[in-house]
Formats: sequence, C-alpha cells, structure tokens
Amino acid sequence: MRYHDCLTADEQTAAGVGNTAPFALADRVRFNEIDKLGHVNNAAYMVWYETARVRYLGHHGLTGFGTTDPRLMIFRGEIDFLGEVFAEEDYVITCRCVAFRSTSFTLENELWAGGRLRGRFRGIMVAMQPDGSAKMPLPQSFIDVFEQVDGATRTT
Amino acid sequence: MRYHDCLTADEQTAAGVGNTAPFALADRVRFNEIDKLGHVNNAAYMVWYETARVRYLGHHGLTGFGTTDPRLMIFRGEIDFLGEVFAEEDYVITCRCVAFRSTSFTLENELWAGGRLRGRFRGIMVAMQPDGSAKMPLPQSFIDVFEQVDGATRTT
Amino acid sequence: MRYHDCLTADEQTAAGVGNTAPFALADRVRFNEIDKLGHVNNAAYMVWYETARVRYLGHHGLTGFGTTDPRLMIFRGEIDFLGEVFAEEDYVITCRCVAFRSTSFTLENELWAGGRLRGRFRGIMVAMQPDGSAKMPLPQSFIDVFEQVDGATRTT
Amino acid sequence: MRYHDCLTADEQTAAGVGNTAPFALADRVRFNEIDKLGHVNNAAYMVWYETARVRYLGHHGLTGFGTTDPRLMIFRGEIDFLGEVFAEEDYVITCRCVAFRSTSFTLENELWAGGRLRGRFRGIMVAMQPDGSAKMPLPQSFIDVFEQVDGATRTT
Repeated sequence: MRYHDCLTADEQTAAGVGNTAPFALADRVRFNEIDKLGHVNNAAYMVWYETARVRYLGHHGLTGFGTTDPRLMIFRGEIDFLGEVFAEEDYVITCRCVAFRSTSFTLENELWAGGRLRGRFRGIMVAMQPDGSAKMPLPQSFIDVFEQVDGATRTT
Repeated sequence: MRYHDCLTADEQTAAGVGNTAPFALADRVRFNEIDKLGHVNNAAYMVWYETARVRYLGHHGLTGFGTTDPRLMIFRGEIDFLGEVFAEEDYVITCRCVAFRSTSFTLENELWAGGRLRGRFRGIMVAMQPDGSAKMPLPQSFIDVFEQVDGATRTT
Repeated sequence: MRYHDCLTADEQTAAGVGNTAPFALADRVRFNEIDKLGHVNNAAYMVWYETARVRYLGHHGLTGFGTTDPRLMIFRGEIDFLGEVFAEEDYVITCRCVAFRSTSFTLENELWAGGRLRGRFRGIMVAMQPDGSAKMPLPQSFIDVFEQVDGATRTT
Repeated sequence: MRYHDCLTADEQTAAGVGNTAPFALADRVRFNEIDKLGHVNNAAYMVWYETARVRYLGHHGLTGFGTTDPRLMIFRGEIDFLGEVFAEEDYVITCRCVAFRSTSFTLENELWAGGRLRGRFRGIMVAMQPDGSAKMPLPQSFIDVFEQVDGATRTT
C-alpha cells in the first residue's frame, strides 16, 4: 500500500475501494485511535476526514492554509459510521467535491477498509476572507478543480 | 460556573443557554483544542459531544460502558458549526433524546457559549448486545428516561 | 469539586492532594481519554499537563499566547506514570516553578486522584522572542511569580 | 518515502536519518497535530512515539495487545524537543531497546525530519500479568529481540 500520496484509480481498486475517486489517500489505524470499546473512536474519523480534506486542497494547489489564503471553515458535517474499524487496519479515504455555490462547497469522503465501505462524510465548507471578516467568492482555481477534476456542478 | 455535573435550568439560563434542557454540562476550552486557524478544531467538538453523551447516559444510570451493558454505537452524526469557539471560553452542552425506535435513539446536543448557540449535534445511536453480535431492544430504563425526562417520542 | 479555576490549599487538601501548591486545577477524565487498555492513555496526560501550564501562566498574568507575548516552548519533559487513572475519575494537577535561569524555567506538576499521587511531570520551558528568532530573557513578571509565589530559585 | 512499515537501513539513510536503527517507521504530520503556535503540539509526539512502540512490538511478534498478552505499561518517559516540526513534514521515528531488567525495559526513539534530529524519547515499560495483578517476568521472546536484534544489555 502506498500511503499519504494520492492513489491512482488502479491502486484504489487494488486496495479494495469500490468507488474510485480522483483523489484518495491511504493510511493506517494508530493504537491511540482505539477507544475503550476496542474500535476506532468516533472523533478519530473527524481527524481522518480533515486530513483528507487538507491534502486534497494541497494536492490541487488550492490553499496552503497561509495568512493570505482563503480561510476555509467547515459549516456542517454529516458523518455515517457504516462499519467498525480496528487497530492497525489499512484504510483509504476518497475526497471529491460534489457541489458548490458562490462561497461554499461540499466535499464528500468515503472510507474504505478491507474491501468494505466503513464510513462516509459530507462536509460543507465556507470560504472566508483571510482575516475572517466576510465570506469570499470561491477563487476560479477552486471552481476549475471542482468542475473539471471532480465533475461537480454549481448549485444555487 | 459549575462544571462537569448536570446544571439546573436556572444555572443554564445564567450561563447564557437560550434553550434549556433536562441535562446540560459545562466545560472550558483547552489550549490543545485550538488548531492552526486559532479556533477550536472540528474534531474537538466530536470529543465534547461524546463526553456529553457518555455523562448523560451515566447521569441517568443507563450504562457504565461495562462488559454486560448494551454496546452503544454511533451510527450517524449531523454536526453544525454555527460560530467559532476560542481558547479558554466556557461552554455548555445540552443533551436530550428527541426520538427513539426499538433498537436506536437520537440524541441532540446544543453547544452554547457567551450567550450564543455555537454548534449542534444530532447523533443516532444503536444498541447492540454486549458482545456486539446483534442489535438489542432498548432496555425499559432507556425508554423511561427518553419519554419521561426528555419528552421524546417513539418513531417507527 | 470546583473545576478549572485555581483551588485554595484547603480545597486541595479536601480533594486529597497530599502536597498542596500555590496553583492547582481540578478536572475530570473524559471517555475519549481511555484507550484500548481501559485506562487513561499516556498522551492524554501530556494534554492535561499542558492545560495546567497554560492556565498557570494565564492565572498569573504572564502570557496570553498572543503575537507579542514571549513564545514559550517546551524543551524537555520528564513524565512519571505512578498509577493508572480511570474513566470519569476526578483529578487535581498542581503546577509550580521549581527552578529558572536567564531564558528558561522548570515547571513541576503533580497529578493527584483519589488521595494518591498518580503522576508527575517536569517540563523545561524556554522563552523565545515572539517571532521565534532568538531566546528571550525572562520578563521580570515571570521572575516575580517564580520567586515570590512559588519560592523557586535561580540556577546558573 | 515508504510509510508505516519498517524501513531498511538504506531507506533510513536516504530519508536523512543520521543514526539508523533495526526498526524505523515513517509518517507524515497531520493538520490536526499543529497547534495555535503553528507547530506540532507536544502531545502529538507522545502519540507518535506510542505508535512506534506498538508497531515495534508487533513487528517483532512480541505482543498483539490481546487479553492473554503481557500488559505493557509505560512507567516513565523522558522526552526531548530538539526542533520544531511543521505541517505536512515527513518524519522517521526509530525504536530500539537500550536496556532491560527482569520485568521492565527501556525503549529509545529518535525523531528525524529533513535530515535533522528533532526529538528523542526514552520510555521505561513494565510488563504486567494480562489481568494487571502483578509484574511479569519478560518472556524469552522479548529478551531475544532486545539482545539479538537491538544489542541491548541486561541491567540489574
């Protein structure tokens, strides 16, 4: 398994991802992420999905989270826990934009491990001015990736 | 502010909670929960809501997460980020059951700080047998709390 | 138990602290901090000690971790795990300066729960210029607290 | 960079590790691990060192942290922060036993990134019976690895 860098569609398929995406990252469960119930704690998934979002944005050159970059904030998340994940399992998280508006966009993540879909996350992100003072129209670079790489559609 | 134990309705009102609930807990933001953007990281909220859920269940004597207790797992979460939260702020999280079925129930949390609603979480929990082998009908003790304390209604 | 704000010596004694200090904070274990072995995970203690350090510094008005404050960095830590800590236990962490030099200082924490010393942490902190470019002599306000409140001695 | 699995000495050297070890793991910094000061938070290192310890033990087949395995607990840690680590950096953590006694052993980790030693951890681990009731003499399998792979010496 190749970790941390975007997997090709073939690599995703070989890793058991049933629904390949233009962006996908592999990682491995840490001991620290297992809770008293013996499975991955629900908060750990939020860290994983955040990591995938941040690397998706970096991979496409959209933001480095610097002081002049748009301030991207999560506004709403919907998270489905479809199957427990256990210690030291390898997993793949896909990330793609499924919809966008003038100042916000929706990223969808799927979490695959052992050939099964274990989780899903839909996060609505809002772009703010770097100083957080007001919303900011999405830069064209974002729109290009959303439309041309991910096939997302603008909604109103 | 009285932390970690269930606040009365009067205490909740004094703390700026605009929508008091039968169960509410106060806590304070930790330095560690602030991320690179200078506000509470999105994953920290999941830990807070989990803490509130666990203490709600314990407060009502429903489970101690022991080996013979029902194995409660989160199945789906919907999380709204309504306002940033910053270092060392006090916050109150309410918790109540808003609906339940034969083997699952929905808990709703509100997050209040400085007199404003900063976040909301709806988590659907499923009761499993202690060994995780199958779903488990909700014990009557759960139903009593959901109906009589929280005023939740059974859905089908 | 009064949480999050500095406890008096009497409150510390009542809470079972065998070695009271000018600064002490109470808190309660979270479900999320329990790991697969059923006790508090070792990394959680680092978060607790950090929280105590940050509040000690704020309580004495030494820094608010703002952009013009000294940049305080931990240089070395020595952590002793003297007894397991379990879910939902109350604990008290004391914090005091035990030694300081021109640009660094040593804070010592003790962790008490249920009348027993469960852990200890000694952290050596270094003061840097706000931009991190060079070490910074300790402000007199730091030295006053270290000497007059904590009874620490300057070492060379 | 090959992540999560033990690197060969050549791979360690290529990754800038100045002091190769029989066991070494690579990983990448997550956004979530960066704190308000813009660098990796001190508690995140504890998670990294724990992850390296757990995988070292698993790699050598010493324990799977199951209910019949020795219960390994950390008794003392000494952690040196030698250089800040920043977002998305790759790092390598080495792990080797440097000393052992009848029921305890000392693991030493080095943290390398960008060709520089950024941190070091020495953890003293104690072996307990699986039920935690008493100390447990180190199994011969542990001693074999400590002596033959890591070149550690028994101390008294």
